Amino acid sequence: MKEKRETVVSIVMGSDSDLPVMKEATSILEEFHVPHELFLTSAHRSPERTSLFADEAARRGVKVIIVGAGMAAHLAGVIASQTPLPVIGVPVDSSSLQGLDALLSTVQMPGGIPVATMAIGKAGAKNAALMAVRILALEDEGLRRKLDVYIRKMADNIEKKQQKL
Amino acid sequence: MKEKRETVVSIVMGSDSDLPVMKEATSILEEFHVPHELFLTSAHRSPERTSLFADEAARRGVKVIIVGAGMAAHLAGVIASQTPLPVIGVPVDSSSLQGLDALLSTVQMPGGIPVATMAIGKAGAKNAALMAVRILALEDEGLRRKLDVYIRKMADNIEKKQQKL
Amino acid sequence: MKEKRETVVSIVMGSDSDLPVMKEATSILEEFHVPHELFLTSAHRSPERTSLFADEAARRGVKVIIVGAGMAAHLAGVIASQTPLPVIGVPVDSSSLQGLDALLSTVQMPGGIPVATMAIGKAGAKNAALMAVRILALEDEGLRRKLDVYIRKMADNIEKKQQKL
Amino acid sequence: MKEKRETVVSIVMGSDSDLPVMKEATSILEEFHVPHELFLTSAHRSPERTSLFADEAARRGVKVIIVGAGMAAHLAGVIASQTPLPVIGVPVDSSSLQGLDALLSTVQMPGGIPVATMAIGKAGAKNAALMAVRILALEDEGLRRKLDVYIRKMADNIEKKQQKL
Amino acid sequence: MKEKRETVVSIVMGSDSDLPVMKEATSILEEFHVPHELFLTSAHRSPERTSLFADEAARRGVKVIIVGAGMAAHLAGVIASQTPLPVIGVPVDSSSLQGLDALLSTVQMPGGIPVATMAIGKAGAKNAALMAVRILALEDEGLRRKLDVYIRKMADNIEKKQQKL
Amino acid sequence: MKEKRETVVSIVMGSDSDLPVMKEATSILEEFHVPHELFLTSAHRSPERTSLFADEAARRGVKVIIVGAGMAAHLAGVIASQTPLPVIGVPVDSSSLQGLDALLSTVQMPGGIPVATMAIGKAGAKNAALMAVRILALEDEGLRRKLDVYIRKMADNIEKKQQKL
Amino acid sequence: MKEKRETVVSIVMGSDSDLPVMKEATSILEEFHVPHELFLTSAHRSPERTSLFADEAARRGVKVIIVGAGMAAHLAGVIASQTPLPVIGVPVDSSSLQGLDALLSTVQMPGGIPVATMAIGKAGAKNAALMAVRILALEDEGLRRKLDVYIRKMADNIEKKQQKL
Amino acid sequence: MKEKRETVVSIVMGSDSDLPVMKEATSILEEFHVPHELFLTSAHRSPERTSLFADEAARRGVKVIIVGAGMAAHLAGVIASQTPLPVIGVPVDSSSLQGLDALLSTVQMPGGIPVATMAIGKAGAKNAALMAVRILALEDEGLRRKLDVYIRKMADNIEKKQQKL
Repeated sequence: MKEKRETVVSIVMGSDSDLPVMKEATSILEEFHVPHELFLTSAHRSPERTSLFADEAARRGVKVIIVGAGMAAHLAGVIASQTPLPVIGVPVDSSSLQGLDALLSTVQMPGGIPVATMAIGKAGAKNAALMAVRILALEDEGLRRKLDVYIRKMADNIEKKQQKL
Repeated sequence: MKEKRETVVSIVMGSDSDLPVMKEATSILEEFHVPHELFLTSAHRSPERTSLFADEAARRGVKVIIVGAGMAAHLAGVIASQTPLPVIGVPVDSSSLQGLDALLSTVQMPGGIPVATMAIGKAGAKNAALMAVRILALEDEGLRRKLDVYIRKMADNIEKKQQKL
Repeated sequence: MKEKRETVVSIVMGSDSDLPVMKEATSILEEFHVPHELFLTSAHRSPERTSLFADEAARRGVKVIIVGAGMAAHLAGVIASQTPLPVIGVPVDSSSLQGLDALLSTVQMPGGIPVATMAIGKAGAKNAALMAVRILALEDEGLRRKLDVYIRKMADNIEKKQQKL
Repeated sequence: MKEKRETVVSIVMGSDSDLPVMKEATSILEEFHVPHELFLTSAHRSPERTSLFADEAARRGVKVIIVGAGMAAHLAGVIASQTPLPVIGVPVDSSSLQGLDALLSTVQMPGGIPVATMAIGKAGAKNAALMAVRILALEDEGLRRKLDVYIRKMADNIEKKQQKL
Repeated sequence: MKEKRETVVSIVMGSDSDLPVMKEATSILEEFHVPHELFLTSAHRSPERTSLFADEAARRGVKVIIVGAGMAAHLAGVIASQTPLPVIGVPVDSSSLQGLDALLSTVQMPGGIPVATMAIGKAGAKNAALMAVRILALEDEGLRRKLDVYIRKMADNIEKKQQKL
Repeated sequence: MKEKRETVVSIVMGSDSDLPVMKEATSILEEFHVPHELFLTSAHRSPERTSLFADEAARRGVKVIIVGAGMAAHLAGVIASQTPLPVIGVPVDSSSLQGLDALLSTVQMPGGIPVATMAIGKAGAKNAALMAVRILALEDEGLRRKLDVYIRKMADNIEKKQQKL
Repeated sequence: MKEKRETVVSIVMGSDSDLPVMKEATSILEEFHVPHELFLTSAHRSPERTSLFADEAARRGVKVIIVGAGMAAHLAGVIASQTPLPVIGVPVDSSSLQGLDALLSTVQMPGGIPVATMAIGKAGAKNAALMAVRILALEDEGLRRKLDVYIRKMADNIEKKQQKL
Repeated sequence: MKEKRETVVSIVMGSDSDLPVMKEATSILEEFHVPHELFLTSAHRSPERTSLFADEAARRGVKVIIVGAGMAAHLAGVIASQTPLPVIGVPVDSSSLQGLDALLSTVQMPGGIPVATMAIGKAGAKNAALMAVRILALEDEGLRRKLDVYIRKMADNIEKKQQKL
């Protein structure tokens, strides 16, 4: 596990084939200098490893968990049921149903255990990291300023793109 | 737990509100005199209870597990990942999406851990029990004969209903 | 506006007809003694009021915004685009499409502006409040202990319901 | 902004990646010699720019606004909420859900603020321009005649294509 | 036909069972004092009546046509193909598919003939009338002022409802 | 129009881009030696041509009409409303929605005017021709025998393919 | 079986609960004086009865078979695979999925065996009978005239309903 | 037919184009040394062959039947209706609807005849074989041990993949 002691955000994937999608999240966390790790575990193929991870995450100092999974994407819900930390779910489009299965499996959590669900695929992975930043920025003034800059830059970029049109 | 020592089929529900649906399964098992139990546990609200159940089922002599759950219905998959027994999933229609969420969350299992998925709702619960009977009948000649009678009766019933038309 | 000075969570609704759904969120926040307010504004019918709200929320000390809206549910995304606070979206089932329109309008946010989307309807409203609690508990040990108790109680309740079965 | 003083139709896009789709609209407006502009702004990444645009459009003499956007396509609704001009929405297929998300986010507007929604993608962009022409032709006899010719030509083209079959 | 000589907006329905939905449109047009008529014709059961209507609408002084229809809702498209006037389509929820059939049949028009599609059902019928008002207000200063008042009132209403909350 | 005097089945398409799909129908009709024609007309772009075709088809001796169209596929319904002949509809997959729009627009006809709808795409076009053959075979003993042979051959082919497996 | 010697159209149902839907078909056939029968058989619960029926239908003089079934509606396809007669399928809405399952199970027949699919539910049952009439009218001048009258009456009815509006 | 006398699992396909999908099932059965056969038959194009197969399977010693089919996938249900053996269905994605048609046609079986449905496509085929193994392992201690090893290896593989990340 590419863990660093000070890991604040843990990015979990159900399969290494989800990596190209979830890299969108790592890019954002790197841009914001948020210490993070990549963790591979499956709700179904490695249930014990998943339980262990969920159980220890808070103790290890992790504050936010981002989970990407496809098909009957149970991973985010299963982890959320075993940790009090906020869990952000990213449905991955990895079946013929284009991620609709992963979306509904992630977002339609019954009352009691929430999963903060993002859009299907890369946009969702990027936004998962930005949601983690928004949460962490609540108690981190520096991060809040970076977030304000990031948001302003998005608006500026649009004006620049307008020039090129 | 309404367990009897000789329990062969365990019917698991994610919520007691699933009972009216899952009773279709108990009726069939009673009709076929298959010893069974009703077990209540949630993939999300009682994950440890769920793990314990899954872990012990085989040892307790259970041969087939039927699982009913609604919304992001992870329960069947989560149990299947912790037992080598055949698990039959019944998607329950308990959200505004009419069971489509439960169906996809149950049936779209990634390769490695199978869940034998039935139709949404009461027809599915009934068929889950009949699928359990088909499995058990492979090694139980008496049950096989009852199943043959049951199948014949269904055909006869249609002819009787034709008379009344 | 039923605001209290110390409001920490703001629950925003696009229409007063969303109230029966969003009350699930207020119940949870009351149970956890999290100061909150109910705010009514529409992305489309009162855009200025919405902008003003979004713009001032952080300054007013609000930490998490929960937004419920139906149909083409733009409200959560529109607010998220004008605040750096974490925004949690609850799709409300208020058209013939059973909330599928509200779900997709809320969750499928393009990269850059995240909305933490919950399940359609009451389960989603309840979970939105629980997600807010999880976020606030990151820096509030007392809240974290209440959350741990809440989670344990859910598991206990299932065992009690099993008795009655 | 490629604005001309006399701009009558404004074509707005949420992202420059929508350009290949929205060019179908500019082609039609060029064919009908309707002065138009291309304007890039995002409901979420540049909300102020969007508000400013919507607020000023009528004053600048714009008569019809065409808006293309993908995913949770809020842009058309957000603009419509800030202008009394007719707004035509074009859902763009830019997620794994094939434009269904953009379609529902655009068309399912709650009562009060209408968006005239077209088909997903290029056919929709083309028809958005033709709808703008139909609206403008109500008070422009010359444009009406061009429209009549255009409609007749479509029918003639089909007869020509029949020959080649 | 409840026609008045000066009819400006024609509201067309495929079946008299669509009346409860389409009355949302007449209410708005009455509120704005826009002369209108209710016309009953089916794309399939009275094709000649439909053609005659479409053919004569412009000559009779009609400026905007609003069309409500359910199931395989061809009526708006069929009328749009036989008039150069702007046609606004309202999908009516009158089958087991909850208006999804009517929505797709109305909005997915191929390139060449546009139908300005509104939300399914009553919200859509109301917005169809408001879209007609927006179009007519382009050349009618009085109507434009009424529209501005209407839009302001919607925002005010939300503030009033906030008080009652 | 590639018409032959004795045309019995008319294959109509809304666009020449539907030809690769509809050729599956011509192949079958050639195999069964059923005289047929290919006719190009659009419900929306050439409504008069469509009406004329529908009106004259029966008089010209045509017995069955096969219609292929995509998106908001009104063509089959529009023709069926203007002829007493049996009309068979083939939904063509020509939008991002994969033919679901064309399927619902073709099959969900309101009571009164039937369209015999086939599967989306090539399988549907092939089956449309086979349905035409089944209808014509009711009064044509020779055709019936060819149909029996065709059906038998399909079964034989499967046995041959088994060998190769 | 309520068979009359001269039965021309056979209406088959998968369950007696489909009767309220399929009565729409019998009403039309009675109106047109087409001799018909109601036959109850299930693709799954009485497969032999189904095969026997399909096998003998043509020999008994039946010319068109109408089949109504719900859920995974295999009955129309199964009958079509065992008879050369034209088979018309009516998807019945009898599960939580509102007939979408029955529609796709009926219409998406693979190439080789066609089922002429109608709309879901009562409109579809009515149209199934009208499609049977259109087929029979090809060789029955009297029936053709009745059909022409029926079609004219539908148009007249709309004009009468217009009066009452 | 590539039958071996001792065949325990029969893998049935509706078309030889389903082979690349169903090979996922044969690979698993080979890995577990479960004697199996590949059988090609279509519910629609070879109904007699299908009936014969279903009728004889149990007598030939087959214990579990795996069925892959696409579109209106009736094959699993049709076989299940003619055998008391457990039937596992694999929906194959072979139409423009991405396997949704095959999924609903397979899983939504009416009460009485169960089909144990797996995920669409390759993951489903693989899991079908693993479900067969779980069923057979109920009475075969050796197979049960292999299954335990297989399950453990899946978990180990994830840890290995973590290293490489």
